[in-house]
Amino acid sequence: ADVAAGKTKAAVCAACHGANGISIIPDYPNLAGQKVKYLQSAMKAYRDGERKNPIMSPMASGLSDDDIANISAYFASLPAGG
Amino acid sequence: ADVAAGKTKAAVCAACHGANGISIIPDYPNLAGQKVKYLQSAMKAYRDGERKNPIMSPMASGLSDDDIANISAYFASLPAGG
Repeated sequence: ADVAAGKTKAAVCAACHGANGISIIPDYPNLAGQKVKYLQSAMKAYRDGERKNPIMSPMASGLSDDDIANISAYFASLPAGG
Repeated sequence: ADVAAGKTKAAVCAACHGANGISIIPDYPNLAGQKVKYLQSAMKAYRDGERKNPIMSPMASGLSDDDIANISAYFASLPAGG
């Protein structure tokens, strides 16, 4: 996976999940240091409709598998706890 | 919330999510240092059927709101990254 490409693609995610992957809003999960495979499965669940969320579903809808791999690698690379 | 009660109730969770809240299995999320409100909403989603998962749904099915609050407070209290 391409962490740099993931970081670019994840720019929009920072609005809720924080620039360092520590969420600004208590309802939304921290992503920093999370498991890559879990992040991938969660994004695919939103993209493919297994999980339905008014914000995440549209966010994930346009993502390719490569996008998801890169974004996941990026957030997993951030230090847990910020 | 009662973190000690949460720790007791969360004993079974350690099998997948790790004794320190850092998951042993890459498919399952780390919970240590996660947002309390997010943990609560995820567990309720599994308990109430909004999220369906062969492992988590039965795990969450017997939990009361207090259990969920305590377990969430417990995992949120663990240092992110283990």
